[in-house]
Amino acid sequence: MLAVDEDQVLADLRALAGFGKFDTGVHRPAFSEADLAAREWLRQRMQAAGLDGVIDGIGNVYGRAPGAERTVLLGSHTDTVPNGGWLDGALGVIFGLEVVRAWRRARPDNVIGVDLISFADEEGTWLSCLGSRSFCGALTDAELTGVRTRTGERLLDRLAHAGLANRAMVRLDLKRHGAYLEAHIEQGPRLVSDAVDIGVVTGIVGLRRHVVFFRGRADHAGTTPMGTRRDAASALFVFATTLADRLREAGGPDSVWNYGIVAVRPGAANVVPGEAELTVEFRDLSPTIIERMDAAFHATVGASDGAFGVAVSTTSDGSLEPTAMDKGLMGAFAAAAAEAGASHICMPSGAGHDAMILARHIPAAMMFVPSIDGRSHDISEDTHEDDIRQGLRIFAGAAGRILEELTPTNGRAAVSSGERERAP
Amino acid sequence: MLAVDEDQVLADLRALAGFGKFDTGVHRPAFSEADLAAREWLRQRMQAAGLDGVIDGIGNVYGRAPGAERTVLLGSHTDTVPNGGWLDGALGVIFGLEVVRAWRRARPDNVIGVDLISFADEEGTWLSCLGSRSFCGALTDAELTGVRTRTGERLLDRLAHAGLANRAMVRLDLKRHGAYLEAHIEQGPRLVSDAVDIGVVTGIVGLRRHVVFFRGRADHAGTTPMGTRRDAASALFVFATTLADRLREAGGPDSVWNYGIVAVRPGAANVVPGEAELTVEFRDLSPTIIERMDAAFHATVGASDGAFGVAVSTTSDGSLEPTAMDKGLMGAFAAAAAEAGASHICMPSGAGHDAMILARHIPAAMMFVPSIDGRSHDISEDTHEDDIRQGLRIFAGAAGRILEELTPTNGRAAVSSGERERAP
Repeated sequence: MLAVDEDQVLADLRALAGFGKFDTGVHRPAFSEADLAAREWLRQRMQAAGLDGVIDGIGNVYGRAPGAERTVLLGSHTDTVPNGGWLDGALGVIFGLEVVRAWRRARPDNVIGVDLISFADEEGTWLSCLGSRSFCGALTDAELTGVRTRTGERLLDRLAHAGLANRAMVRLDLKRHGAYLEAHIEQGPRLVSDAVDIGVVTGIVGLRRHVVFFRGRADHAGTTPMGTRRDAASALFVFATTLADRLREAGGPDSVWNYGIVAVRPGAANVVPGEAELTVEFRDLSPTIIERMDAAFHATVGASDGAFGVAVSTTSDGSLEPTAMDKGLMGAFAAAAAEAGASHICMPSGAGHDAMILARHIPAAMMFVPSIDGRSHDISEDTHEDDIRQGLRIFAGAAGRILEELTPTNGRAAVSSGERERAP
Repeated sequence: MLAVDEDQVLADLRALAGFGKFDTGVHRPAFSEADLAAREWLRQRMQAAGLDGVIDGIGNVYGRAPGAERTVLLGSHTDTVPNGGWLDGALGVIFGLEVVRAWRRARPDNVIGVDLISFADEEGTWLSCLGSRSFCGALTDAELTGVRTRTGERLLDRLAHAGLANRAMVRLDLKRHGAYLEAHIEQGPRLVSDAVDIGVVTGIVGLRRHVVFFRGRADHAGTTPMGTRRDAASALFVFATTLADRLREAGGPDSVWNYGIVAVRPGAANVVPGEAELTVEFRDLSPTIIERMDAAFHATVGASDGAFGVAVSTTSDGSLEPTAMDKGLMGAFAAAAAEAGASHICMPSGAGHDAMILARHIPAAMMFVPSIDGRSHDISEDTHEDDIRQGLRIFAGAAGRILEELTPTNGRAAVSSGERERAP
């Protein structure tokens, strides 16, 4: 196993948490002053670790291992949601930074190196996984030009304001980057409730998001007999409870669904609601199950349309296909956990991550450390220090295994067992 | 039957609809310029009809029959909801105006007269039934001082601006006002769907309004397993569908209930709702049924509290007791309808009216004319001209019967059969 400096990692995490500190958490949305300052701090830490550190034209902080012919890319993100937690993606970036240092200490002259990246705006203040999309060439100039915050500010203007306007973009290099590894907090309660040390991520779940519209008729709630009402709210309530049953039947044991947004109009106590709106999303790792849930959803919309005199229709509000992690890399995490005397489970990630974007192009894998009470995206987010230390040892162990596997016996770089050569 | 001038009534209604005309409807909220101008117009029409017309300190327009010792009070209101309809309460005021004229034509020297009133702000732009509350002495100075619009403007300031600040208040006079009669549009679809000419109102329904709070826990909608969620929105949906069944069981054939306001927080597609809020109201004419529905409501709250890990609690958001109309006066409407060759049904009013306030002090009754498609409080509100003409004949017929009944054979005023002497 690679020898890591656990105290240094805790010190780096705490230093990083000082940028945008907010109560017990961190407020560091993409391209805020705090985020930009944290990026420059990280670039200097990369330099100190012997990497060539740059901030590219989209805000990605990239540390390139000089002299390496082929590398394992480690990373995550250092931006946060508003009033978020201190670990989230920062944990994976600082774990990666320590692996860089440990690998250079252990194998200073190896042609196989460790590159490190902190992707910009993973949280989607502007666009989810903005930095990793750009890195993988999955973002057109037209798309980039169109990106604005909810308040209408253009991303290009903000990038120019941050002094990033004319910088080159760092891109994924299939010849160089042999694999991508990312550590992250779990953001859910499963590791804690199952009393397991780490999660080896099997894949990032796919998602379907739909908005359902209910159109009835607004009426006086005192003078309109129940039998003649076309009550959009009551139709929504019945739809939502019915759909939950249908999704439970169609889904698998790890399927999740949510009714996150509900609107009822006109919204007066004494007016029968004439219109209502429900946002439904559901997720699973299996493409088959996602399709089955989607079919159940559309069947429920069809069966509900017209009931109670209320028209029911729907539009898609986005979808993501499930993304499997690389089995060879997953095995390295499992082996490193066993070597460290730690327990692990294989589990899907219910949340999106930069690894989802990278996995479309190179072998990628993720490892979760436990989140206390499953909290994240909140100032209460935290992980026990022992879990951070143990997670670091396992992450470094897995990275070391993969780096050794890549290391040529003949002086040339080998190719990871699981590599899939797809054009970015 | 009293001989009425139907064309004059239609002309008066159309003239009144010119104040605050908005598309096919009327925008004449209480104490707007249009409302104040309409009130002065009405006062002058009262003068022309031989009444002593005044606008009092709360904005009530009152026409007093000179020389009469005892009267039947007719009225309704001429204010509207924002962008409302042209008839609503205006119909009842103009019907009353024509009965004043017809009675004076028919019995010019009778000691029994007809007084007319247009109450201020029945619609509650400032306070529901403001004018009739004031008229009945049911509004304290402290209450009056506290009345403001949603934007914070004080009623007393608006009254001063309208030049009403130092005027006397007109009050209900139990010695003078023997009965109160009000015509109004139905504001519901029942007369049209049952193909009935008029509705004789049995009473104004009582109402209970409750806000129900659901407190769970906000969580990431991708990473939190279904089994560990405390989803306030799903708890609300199940509560609402269950409560509808319980209210149906507890209620009577005319009971109504409504879920008019729904809020779900934080309101993001990918966050499990941690809080939700539902406003429930239900109405019935029977105090027994209202109490039974209220018991079913509280039992459902109790049974739901804690299910799905969601705490359920409730606070009252107001209540009104049912108000019965006077049976003797109802009989006059039924007899007048029969005499006119018209059909009628006895029905509760699901909406509040000034008659509800008056009925606490003197015998009161109401009559409904049909609303096309049951529409009201909207610019689409309308009533077929034939229904207005027929409604007028029946209203005048009933008023004539009651006036004749009051008329003394010995030269002194009699007392209405149904009078209840309560202090205002």
